Amino acid sequence: DCDGGGECANVLSGFEVKSVLRDSARDKTIFIHGTVEDQEAVVILEKTPMRQDNLAEIFQESRLKLQMKNDIYSTYQLQPPAHLNEIKTTVICPATQKHVKKYLSQEMFLVEETGEDYLSTTLPYIESQSFSVQWVYNILEKKAEADRIVFEDPDPDTGFVLLPDFKWDQKQLYDLYLIAIVHRRNIKSLRDLTSDHLPLLRNISKKGKESIQKQYGMPACKLRVYLHYQPSYYHLHVHFTSLNYDAPGCGVERAHLLTDVIMNLEADPQYYQNRTITYTLRADDNLLLRFREAGRC
Amino acid sequence: DCDGGGECANVLSGFEVKSVLRDSARDKTIFIHGTVEDQEAVVILEKTPMRQDNLAEIFQESRLKLQMKNDIYSTYQLQPPAHLNEIKTTVICPATQKHVKKYLSQEMFLVEETGEDYLSTTLPYIESQSFSVQWVYNILEKKAEADRIVFEDPDPDTGFVLLPDFKWDQKQLYDLYLIAIVHRRNIKSLRDLTSDHLPLLRNISKKGKESIQKQYGMPACKLRVYLHYQPSYYHLHVHFTSLNYDAPGCGVERAHLLTDVIMNLEADPQYYQNRTITYTLRADDNLLLRFREAGRC
Repeated sequence: DCDGGGECANVLSGFEVKSVLRDSARDKTIFIHGTVEDQEAVVILEKTPMRQDNLAEIFQESRLKLQMKNDIYSTYQLQPPAHLNEIKTTVICPATQKHVKKYLSQEMFLVEETGEDYLSTTLPYIESQSFSVQWVYNILEKKAEADRIVFEDPDPDTGFVLLPDFKWDQKQLYDLYLIAIVHRRNIKSLRDLTSDHLPLLRNISKKGKESIQKQYGMPACKLRVYLHYQPSYYHLHVHFTSLNYDAPGCGVERAHLLTDVIMNLEADPQYYQNRTITYTLRADDNLLLRFREAGRC
Repeated sequence: DCDGGGECANVLSGFEVKSVLRDSARDKTIFIHGTVEDQEAVVILEKTPMRQDNLAEIFQESRLKLQMKNDIYSTYQLQPPAHLNEIKTTVICPATQKHVKKYLSQEMFLVEETGEDYLSTTLPYIESQSFSVQWVYNILEKKAEADRIVFEDPDPDTGFVLLPDFKWDQKQLYDLYLIAIVHRRNIKSLRDLTSDHLPLLRNISKKGKESIQKQYGMPACKLRVYLHYQPSYYHLHVHFTSLNYDAPGCGVERAHLLTDVIMNLEADPQYYQNRTITYTLRADDNLLLRFREAGRC
């Protein structure tokens, strides 16, 4: 149904939308589940990046509609000619349930977890899940990924292993991403930290930065060093990412700068046992269910 | 040069491009420096998010061109009708060198600003710049954007004006972005806040969330409410963004959750005068130069 130049009968004209799986306003991308001629399909629409070589034509050939004017600032709706403003379209057809699930985003909800919530709701949930961190122990014991280790301090109390995160392909420094995993096995998260852990945290900060400077030539002032709460696994680890890289999970609702954590513990040894911590949970997260059962959100 | 419906003579048809300041493929946004009728101008083009209510029309009315087909996967270039695929256009004209610099992409550097650094380096810098916030006063005095105000509490001490941020076109809720601007004119930033401002901050938190619930049906548990440090202008304001929207500037190195700010001031009335605050500065920021001259980074 396409000629040689790629012009097609519009196979999507009969696409029936069942639901929007994910909708990213920032990326101008939408993931849709539906059917094409009775077959399940996932369609991804992504607006194309602005093209520098089109700019002159866009400015000359577009229609403009004023929205707002204040002092030197004004905003318009601009309608460029259709051929200058395409949408990249990906079709998966027939799609399985796995494809549908893969693209399904879940609504996020804000939780304000008090120290009491942690003890009565979050901690029992974590313990009931018995999340496996065997893969972490494999790294610490050199049973896996030993060749990926960038630096190790073997001290059982203040030591750690530093290695590239899976998300970083190490091909460019732009999206540098390393993880420091502590040797101590009894610290699940931020919530377990007290002033007793200050030597450990200061050691990670100092030697982690030094190793990254040495190995990659990236100075400390170009690094974002932080913990997640909630973390994705309950064995203490610290993220090192390039400041120029807008890494996933570095938002204010999940990331806690290591320097802030250290200052908080210096000011109050029990800071992380008592402090209300704000974070987000996905709609399908069982921890959110527990908070709802407890009438806490 | 616009009629009542907002249709304009295309003021940008004579826009001469001098240089591209920044080009974000992920955000589908481009920042351009040029001239309009011999005046310096910065033009920002940002493709609009996909709109769910347009999908049926997009699928039926577009032209489709096959690019690749492999098994169940295929990709197309899709040309929707022009009116379904607009570009949000922001014009700053006449623009100063500061505007041009603001949008020029630059390397970022981390600064750890102590309370002393603020007094000896940052505050003198801010005062020397005499940044104009006339446009803020225009809003507070209803000389501009009065029709955009979503909510106002006129109290001179604890009151504020709530209105959509420029970055939000208000066509869909997933990138909801509003700003609360306080009526008080003597609070430059986070650094000026003390426990005396708790009634103001609690009022913004409570009434801001209530207004957004009432006006847009979005509950507080779907909102990220935060301040920037450094802010982009030195008149206290609070950001309200949808939690599902990965808004620019909500990273841990710039955003401070309003709930955290309130808790910090409850624990220590002088918290923001004494605390070391970590943030990033662009390579060309004169404040970074001052920190370097002071031997502080």
